[in-house]
Amino acid sequence: MRIESVDIFYLRMPEVLDIGDGSQDATLVRVSGGGHVGWGQCEASPLASIAAWVCPLSHSACKPVSASVLGRALDSVEDIVRIGDEVRANSLDLLQAEHMLSGVDIALWDLLGRAKGEPVWRLLGYRQAHPKLPYASVLFGDTPQETLEKAKRSRAAGFRAGKFGWGPYGKGSAAADRDQVMAAREGLGPDGVLLVDAGTIWNEDVARASERVAALREARTTWLEEPFHTGALGAYGELAKRCAPVKLAGGEGSHNFHMAQHLIDHGGIGYVQIDTGRIGGITPAKRVADYAHAKGVTYVNHTFTSQLSLCASLQPYVGIAGDEICEYPTESKAVSARLTKERLLPGADGLIRVPDTPGLGMTPDPAVIREFLVDAEIRVAGKTLYRTPSI
Amino acid sequence: MRIESVDIFYLRMPEVLDIGDGSQDATLVRVSGGGHVGWGQCEASPLASIAAWVCPLSHSACKPVSASVLGRALDSVEDIVRIGDEVRANSLDLLQAEHMLSGVDIALWDLLGRAKGEPVWRLLGYRQAHPKLPYASVLFGDTPQETLEKAKRSRAAGFRAGKFGWGPYGKGSAAADRDQVMAAREGLGPDGVLLVDAGTIWNEDVARASERVAALREARTTWLEEPFHTGALGAYGELAKRCAPVKLAGGEGSHNFHMAQHLIDHGGIGYVQIDTGRIGGITPAKRVADYAHAKGVTYVNHTFTSQLSLCASLQPYVGIAGDEICEYPTESKAVSARLTKERLLPGADGLIRVPDTPGLGMTPDPAVIREFLVDAEIRVAGKTLYRTPSI
Repeated sequence: MRIESVDIFYLRMPEVLDIGDGSQDATLVRVSGGGHVGWGQCEASPLASIAAWVCPLSHSACKPVSASVLGRALDSVEDIVRIGDEVRANSLDLLQAEHMLSGVDIALWDLLGRAKGEPVWRLLGYRQAHPKLPYASVLFGDTPQETLEKAKRSRAAGFRAGKFGWGPYGKGSAAADRDQVMAAREGLGPDGVLLVDAGTIWNEDVARASERVAALREARTTWLEEPFHTGALGAYGELAKRCAPVKLAGGEGSHNFHMAQHLIDHGGIGYVQIDTGRIGGITPAKRVADYAHAKGVTYVNHTFTSQLSLCASLQPYVGIAGDEICEYPTESKAVSARLTKERLLPGADGLIRVPDTPGLGMTPDPAVIREFLVDAEIRVAGKTLYRTPSI
Repeated sequence: MRIESVDIFYLRMPEVLDIGDGSQDATLVRVSGGGHVGWGQCEASPLASIAAWVCPLSHSACKPVSASVLGRALDSVEDIVRIGDEVRANSLDLLQAEHMLSGVDIALWDLLGRAKGEPVWRLLGYRQAHPKLPYASVLFGDTPQETLEKAKRSRAAGFRAGKFGWGPYGKGSAAADRDQVMAAREGLGPDGVLLVDAGTIWNEDVARASERVAALREARTTWLEEPFHTGALGAYGELAKRCAPVKLAGGEGSHNFHMAQHLIDHGGIGYVQIDTGRIGGITPAKRVADYAHAKGVTYVNHTFTSQLSLCASLQPYVGIAGDEICEYPTESKAVSARLTKERLLPGADGLIRVPDTPGLGMTPDPAVIREFLVDAEIRVAGKTLYRTPSI
């Protein structure tokens, strides 16, 4: 089949707040070809991504993403790989391209899977989809007491794993941080999987991060996430040597395979966290999963938005039995939470399973799209390059 | 003073061709404050960059670049550093932000310099601006004979250094590439500085690149540029070990300090090439220059567009006497070539000098801006977020 049309939908909540919640808007991609429709989502600024799709040619290595997608043949996995390579070459100097490509790549996998009657994970070469242990992401409370209660609620809601992050963590003294981490451990119970997210709070300061290691060990923390900026490989590598058996986790900001590879090769991380909505889609995410597996590093999805994104983000590593943990969005805003009718809910054993249906098996609800759709228009030199598509 | 207004101008040639010439359009930034005006330019897609400036808030780490710039205080170098840090934090998940920031940062340095009556390089802490040896960038000819003639013409035009790249190089046999490189050497003369640009042709294939090393040595090539994709640190590091005394050059794609640092730390490059219009402006570029100097790596500008961009790109390393070479655009299209009345022309000694006048000392010509200005408009939810500013 040919890729006949691609539509990008900008969805958002009636009010978007200045808080660390990426589920307040959505960049949704619909790809049509051969009588089938595939869906994907970018974890990215909707307007900037739309601009990356429609922007006029600047030069041979700064083309709009659309130039390497529309009209292309799509009959095999190799076609998806080729399209991604073409986008990266033709849009080399268009920085936003990899975020825009992410939603397109996901939609292409969905489309190909639907056309072939196969789930995406099988197209990726996996023979089996293993269940994953979801962790609930929670902000640290303002006080250890609040954190304790949050951890207890999370456990009561059925989550055996919990990630605590941001809030006051890392901003005050190491002693205050110890109280927070120990409260989280107490609330999760002795057998809970405790994950801590520092939200790049220490920038590149290895000494300040190191002061927290003893408490993280004491609380039997599985990973310390993003102590530093993604690019601070030296700081990552240094801290990694000092914090065993606690492992470092990072990589959500990776917008291509190489960035994740550098964290594995030079940052000493034990967990690589990939957002398929940012790294360029399922294709480069699978490459990271393979690379991580070969290097003894555990792959984890990064997902904070819809169930469509969640399902897409699990595909690259759902066939790796040993990579057990998955991020599971629990507090998404309506535009994300209600996007698809299908939901990946924890089973009786508390585990998450991806569908066995063709493609991703998740279809955005047209009524929900219409409810949250934002009217947008881009005009250049008298020509309308983008107008909100109809649904 | 306060940053009172920022305007972004999208300029382009009447016709933009699908060729490797980045001078066919321009993203120009004008910043006003305290009765002064500063100018900067992004080396980036104009429309995508404008979108990064105006896009609506997605969440606390995905804000438009404008949110961290407009209304901010600007009285010192520290203010510029702080604004850049704020943009990188507030727009962490907006990929295009660093390209947009680049032009803004350059304009802020220009503005501060004009307000203080100091050239930018002095604000950067340099006591002296050293002249640089410009190299002309030329495409390899289709045949060695053509390359020979191009090299002779370049030499006759007064350039003692010449960079040859792209065209057939790297695509055929190592023997054919040898003929090309030897023709370039012959045309430049025995004392010319010969630079070769592989344009990422070998992707990550160290073996194919290695086959060219003997000829590069034989032709006394100073550097081999971009044998691989910027992210392929492992391949860079491997080839670097095999090609001495020829050094590797790379880094033009860096859109933050860390990417350049990784090439220095893990890629084994001898020359780090930075485009101030991509890396986030003069501020991170200066940080790279300092880091490179400390590591014994030579800094070189990457500039393919206007004289405004050229002048901005020289500032970060103009005070380092030992870093002698500079890229000098020689075949820019009119929108770039005519943008400023001021021009940095080679002196009688063939060397380039930056102005001693306040700021960058380069002012875009309003008539030229009007001539190439593109009318653009972005509307979201009934609100006009961008409309081409008047000049």
